[in-house]
Amino acid sequence: MLKKLVAEFVGTFWLVLGGCGSAVLAAAFPDVGIGLLGVAFAFGLTVVTMAYAIGHISGCHLNPAVTVGLWAGGRFPSAEVIPYIIFQVLGGIFGAYVLYLIASGQPGFSLAGGLASNGYGDHSPGGYDLLSGFITEVVMTFMFLIVILGATHKLATPAMAGLAIGLALTLIHLISIPVTNTSVNPARSTGPAVWVGDWAMSQLWLFWVAPLIGAIIAGGFYRWLSPDEE
Amino acid sequence: MLKKLVAEFVGTFWLVLGGCGSAVLAAAFPDVGIGLLGVAFAFGLTVVTMAYAIGHISGCHLNPAVTVGLWAGGRFPSAEVIPYIIFQVLGGIFGAYVLYLIASGQPGFSLAGGLASNGYGDHSPGGYDLLSGFITEVVMTFMFLIVILGATHKLATPAMAGLAIGLALTLIHLISIPVTNTSVNPARSTGPAVWVGDWAMSQLWLFWVAPLIGAIIAGGFYRWLSPDEE
Amino acid sequence: MLKKLVAEFVGTFWLVLGGCGSAVLAAAFPDVGIGLLGVAFAFGLTVVTMAYAIGHISGCHLNPAVTVGLWAGGRFPSAEVIPYIIFQVLGGIFGAYVLYLIASGQPGFSLAGGLASNGYGDHSPGGYDLLSGFITEVVMTFMFLIVILGATHKLATPAMAGLAIGLALTLIHLISIPVTNTSVNPARSTGPAVWVGDWAMSQLWLFWVAPLIGAIIAGGFYRWLSPDEE
Amino acid sequence: MLKKLVAEFVGTFWLVLGGCGSAVLAAAFPDVGIGLLGVAFAFGLTVVTMAYAIGHISGCHLNPAVTVGLWAGGRFPSAEVIPYIIFQVLGGIFGAYVLYLIASGQPGFSLAGGLASNGYGDHSPGGYDLLSGFITEVVMTFMFLIVILGATHKLATPAMAGLAIGLALTLIHLISIPVTNTSVNPARSTGPAVWVGDWAMSQLWLFWVAPLIGAIIAGGFYRWLSPDEE
Repeated sequence: MLKKLVAEFVGTFWLVLGGCGSAVLAAAFPDVGIGLLGVAFAFGLTVVTMAYAIGHISGCHLNPAVTVGLWAGGRFPSAEVIPYIIFQVLGGIFGAYVLYLIASGQPGFSLAGGLASNGYGDHSPGGYDLLSGFITEVVMTFMFLIVILGATHKLATPAMAGLAIGLALTLIHLISIPVTNTSVNPARSTGPAVWVGDWAMSQLWLFWVAPLIGAIIAGGFYRWLSPDEE
Repeated sequence: MLKKLVAEFVGTFWLVLGGCGSAVLAAAFPDVGIGLLGVAFAFGLTVVTMAYAIGHISGCHLNPAVTVGLWAGGRFPSAEVIPYIIFQVLGGIFGAYVLYLIASGQPGFSLAGGLASNGYGDHSPGGYDLLSGFITEVVMTFMFLIVILGATHKLATPAMAGLAIGLALTLIHLISIPVTNTSVNPARSTGPAVWVGDWAMSQLWLFWVAPLIGAIIAGGFYRWLSPDEE
Repeated sequence: MLKKLVAEFVGTFWLVLGGCGSAVLAAAFPDVGIGLLGVAFAFGLTVVTMAYAIGHISGCHLNPAVTVGLWAGGRFPSAEVIPYIIFQVLGGIFGAYVLYLIASGQPGFSLAGGLASNGYGDHSPGGYDLLSGFITEVVMTFMFLIVILGATHKLATPAMAGLAIGLALTLIHLISIPVTNTSVNPARSTGPAVWVGDWAMSQLWLFWVAPLIGAIIAGGFYRWLSPDEE
Repeated sequence: MLKKLVAEFVGTFWLVLGGCGSAVLAAAFPDVGIGLLGVAFAFGLTVVTMAYAIGHISGCHLNPAVTVGLWAGGRFPSAEVIPYIIFQVLGGIFGAYVLYLIASGQPGFSLAGGLASNGYGDHSPGGYDLLSGFITEVVMTFMFLIVILGATHKLATPAMAGLAIGLALTLIHLISIPVTNTSVNPARSTGPAVWVGDWAMSQLWLFWVAPLIGAIIAGGFYRWLSPDEE
């Protein structure tokens, strides 16, 4: 069990360091920056790489909404839900801390840049309101879990599941970074918010509530949709 | 049968929300927008992700032209063609509606932007005329079906089919967004057109006629080309 | 045999229409153009998609240098080399023709834009001289064939070969579009050159000579390098 | 053994020519340049393509840190470590030389551009200091080795390992090019530094020390983490 939890810690550390890191360090680099497209690939590739690296150890959730959605879908034991979530959140916080260490080595760095925290309203990258943010996070997390529950189904193609799931996260970012900076993952949102504080902390509730709602609905829905699921 | 149809509804919902959504929300985001390259990946990844998530449920067509092309190629039963198409179109319309809900949460949003509807002539992104649009949609849909029919052939590599087919849609968008905004899928075209109305509805015929022609030709051609197809 | 040749025709048609098409139609689209990165993905994805669609029919060479390199590596029968090359070149010419039809539907189109022909010196995108162009085409084709010969080796992973080979072509374009517009494929070079004429025809020799040299060296080298090759 | 070493030479040649080549030749091409996103894909794709081409010959390390990390993880024999590293470094130097040959065919080329050498402080692309560079290289190499050790583990999915590992290198570049130009590979750093000399040589020590530290820690850590590793 400890090894599973450490794997989740390392994986979520990587998701936040890699995803938020690419956003903070490289997205808007002058002239040759990677843009939101690069950030979308970075988030997705953290999951692709970890899926093949630690999937056989912990299942590679890296995300409380994924853990809860798999539980709601009857795929994950109740007793492990809380421990998984704790280590995911700790991994996310540590990932944001290492990102802070690296980023602060550039002259002129300031935490006011937000460390790629999620937000709505004035703190939405494109100024989208709370309702847009809520719908977006619920729907995106719902679809993320549909992909996860489907691609890991025993009638699907197990070897490709890690790639499909990671690329689903890339796709979700391609759509929704302008709306909320894209969470679909409470641990990813908590990581930078802890260090940024202020608005990032006061808006953090949305990025726990909405992803968990989307994930639970998806778990129930896929149980109905899926053939031969017991 | 209902589960198959619901799967097609959800998948086509995702194709339109994800593909058109990335175009409307993120393509032209200031400085770091994902551009047409990001939109091309988004459309392709909706198919990649759904192929592995619901392929074992409905076959993951998400597109009336795909359904018709598979039928023309002798791979899909006649009795299911019309129901599949109906649920695909409904999914596309609902996808465009959710996109509208999200997008309208940004100050200054207007439906006049077109919700990524397809068009020709004055409504082609690059001003291409009707003949260019027609040739493009016929040829692109023809090649899309060749990839689908080939990659799902029993002598091909089934595990990779979903990836190859989704990346084919990415490729098609890389080529042809400037010409027609890329359809190759009547359900994808119908979704936003229903809400935009106006020119999007009056030009919609092309994006039913041309993809279906391309798909039917491909179905017949591949039956001839393919080894040992019964 | 006819079906194999038709498959090569269709595949090379797709390579030129897709690769050169993305360059002509979408690379420099105002503000949201796909750039050289998008063109690199387009070329690679033509190969990925065709590899899984027609690989089981013809082997999916789509390129005289690939056919010759496989022959030099002891993997392809001498009797089929010339027919394969003829149908590849015809497919490339037809692909460029359909691209011309589509592109000419935009007001202001002119063939003087070059239809993505390959060139050196004054016709190199970055102004690179003949020697740079020659080295680039020899080395890139050499490495392309190493990937092809290796990834299709009986000790490698057959299911992934099409993806690895297509992404090799993407990589080659990421490196060398600025030097020669990237050929590594005489059929791809011949396609647009036939319609553009002029400098594109007079420089075409390089894009037959250099790729074939690189391919033949690779065929011999890999025979030595590879374990248990008969 | 010679064939293994030659395979490592060719593969590392390709990594440096392809990765650094895309940076030097194409990253900042006017208007349509591939940017840091394209460079990140190029580095990753050199590994993806070589993994499937020569993985069955040498294991496709292409990187002294990978060789040392695999050794530290109990996966690679001590006797082959030094020979592998020598041929990797030679391949990197030759790759940078061929890149120099090609690049110098453009009017106005100068080695002062740095041939994509790695650096910190004044020679960091984004001006990041030595400490940021050190942390970045240690952490990125650590995570790179976690992916490599995990994806090639006997309980993982062997067919996908090459893709996951190559995309891990893409991800690492998406995060860290602005900090150090991204090394995580002493052979990649040594290649261009030998020809550029000057600051590139005097800063080269960091790109041997930090990646090797990260790799050794990862080797030990993964031995603990991994199930059933002997």
